[in-house]
Amino acid sequence: MVLEEESLRDGLQFESQVVGLDDKVRIFSLLAKAGIKRIQVGSFVNPKVVRQMADTDDLVARIKDSNDVLITGLILNMNGLKRTLNCGLEHVSMSVSVSDTHSRRNVRQSAKEALDSMVKLIREAVSSGLVVRGGVQCAFGCVYEGKVPEKRVLDTLYALAEAGAEELNLADTTGMANPLSVQALVKQTRKAVPGKKVSLHLHDTRGLGLANMVAGYEAGTELFDVSAGGLGGCPFVRGASGNVATEDAVNLFEEMGVDTGIDIPTLCEAVEAYESILGRKLPGKMCRVQRAQPNL
Amino acid sequence: MVLEEESLRDGLQFESQVVGLDDKVRIFSLLAKAGIKRIQVGSFVNPKVVRQMADTDDLVARIKDSNDVLITGLILNMNGLKRTLNCGLEHVSMSVSVSDTHSRRNVRQSAKEALDSMVKLIREAVSSGLVVRGGVQCAFGCVYEGKVPEKRVLDTLYALAEAGAEELNLADTTGMANPLSVQALVKQTRKAVPGKKVSLHLHDTRGLGLANMVAGYEAGTELFDVSAGGLGGCPFVRGASGNVATEDAVNLFEEMGVDTGIDIPTLCEAVEAYESILGRKLPGKMCRVQRAQPNL
Repeated sequence: MVLEEESLRDGLQFESQVVGLDDKVRIFSLLAKAGIKRIQVGSFVNPKVVRQMADTDDLVARIKDSNDVLITGLILNMNGLKRTLNCGLEHVSMSVSVSDTHSRRNVRQSAKEALDSMVKLIREAVSSGLVVRGGVQCAFGCVYEGKVPEKRVLDTLYALAEAGAEELNLADTTGMANPLSVQALVKQTRKAVPGKKVSLHLHDTRGLGLANMVAGYEAGTELFDVSAGGLGGCPFVRGASGNVATEDAVNLFEEMGVDTGIDIPTLCEAVEAYESILGRKLPGKMCRVQRAQPNL
Repeated sequence: MVLEEESLRDGLQFESQVVGLDDKVRIFSLLAKAGIKRIQVGSFVNPKVVRQMADTDDLVARIKDSNDVLITGLILNMNGLKRTLNCGLEHVSMSVSVSDTHSRRNVRQSAKEALDSMVKLIREAVSSGLVVRGGVQCAFGCVYEGKVPEKRVLDTLYALAEAGAEELNLADTTGMANPLSVQALVKQTRKAVPGKKVSLHLHDTRGLGLANMVAGYEAGTELFDVSAGGLGGCPFVRGASGNVATEDAVNLFEEMGVDTGIDIPTLCEAVEAYESILGRKLPGKMCRVQRAQPNL
């Protein structure tokens, strides 16, 4: 079971308060100390558009010698790829939306145009020696377009895999998945694109994040995105929650007898650091339970 | 699929602000208008101990002619039974804890003493013509005692069934269940006490309420307790959340193609009434989603 921590990227990216580099380094260290083995530390996008991610290159320089942690970052274009290579990163994430409306609002390209660009970018990244995870946003539906045809999702995944993506990520960007649709799409993906790792990125918008995680696990997924404290949201959907809280996912799997290698009390130190920096409580449950019942 | 609404009893019982009778009647009407078919409207306990429940008799008198809604109440002793019969209620809930420590703190009796009293009370209620639901608190573990031996839970359920309880409720009082333990205990219960309906009362303390509900449904349960907005908590565990939010459970089942007969927008009017009376936002997700995206 691998949990990929997303709080430093997906969690923070739309926070209006910019978190300083020293704070990011401190949080990264706590997440690593808690036993998290894979951390997406930021994105290499236009710093004028996403100020919160302007220091991703500097952050990688400060942390890249961390033992035992796979550090990864999100890229969307050739400039991002160059920055990644300059940093010395070995693993990157890239993703496209299967909803035209969402894609146009997000990257000002149709879903097809975005996929064509992404296929070229993945090829370039792979030929530069990077390991690539390719993702599909809105894989379980879109708030603008409703359900997305399964064939479109599978065709997109196939194109990402063909281009060289080693892992395929199904993202429930706006929390529209349910346990049955998760089970069905994971199974279809494994059939349509055999031999690739399938990971899930589940937002908790409608409270179904953990239920969907169980469904994905039962369908054979052993790689999930999570975010400490449940930090995060979506700028296109007011009121949306972020990813499943890391500590709640750890509790789920450990209670089910599945080892995550992650220590909840240490993780809660990272959550408390976020809460203190951002000045508000985060939605994850286990740190509150831990505070109330420290001996349990 | 039947969802039993618990907000007027389990949801409100530990709120320090006493909700007035007119407000309770208004909320009951909204819950019924939303399509909820079974509502636990209060408990018949000592009004000096639980002030919030002092007007349950008056509330029943105001609402008992509601068509299509099964009205039920919680009783713990003979005095409660008498009040129920005076009100003209036809259905009651009773429950005991399988954790000695929890039982002593809750009703100042050991688990065995509490069960002996409850068996007598169920017999009396059944011979008075009432339909009884018998419940086991802390069925999935106790914050004081940890895991509870399955045999103790099954023996208790058997005793409640023998005494005449028509439905058996497994309560995860402090949110310690996980999908595997829910599946296992529901299956064991159906085997140990065949022919009885099995219902689940799942608290969301650790965020697993909906995941556990899916597990219970897959194991054959079609009767779940819920609370509008996720209102509720537990006085013995600081930081504990209430039952699964009704609107989130409705969304889960409807998305999975299981009809609940409940309309989320109308339900959200009840949640907004609670929020306005109590002066705070409740934890349920779907009313927030509804407000953000009224057309979806």
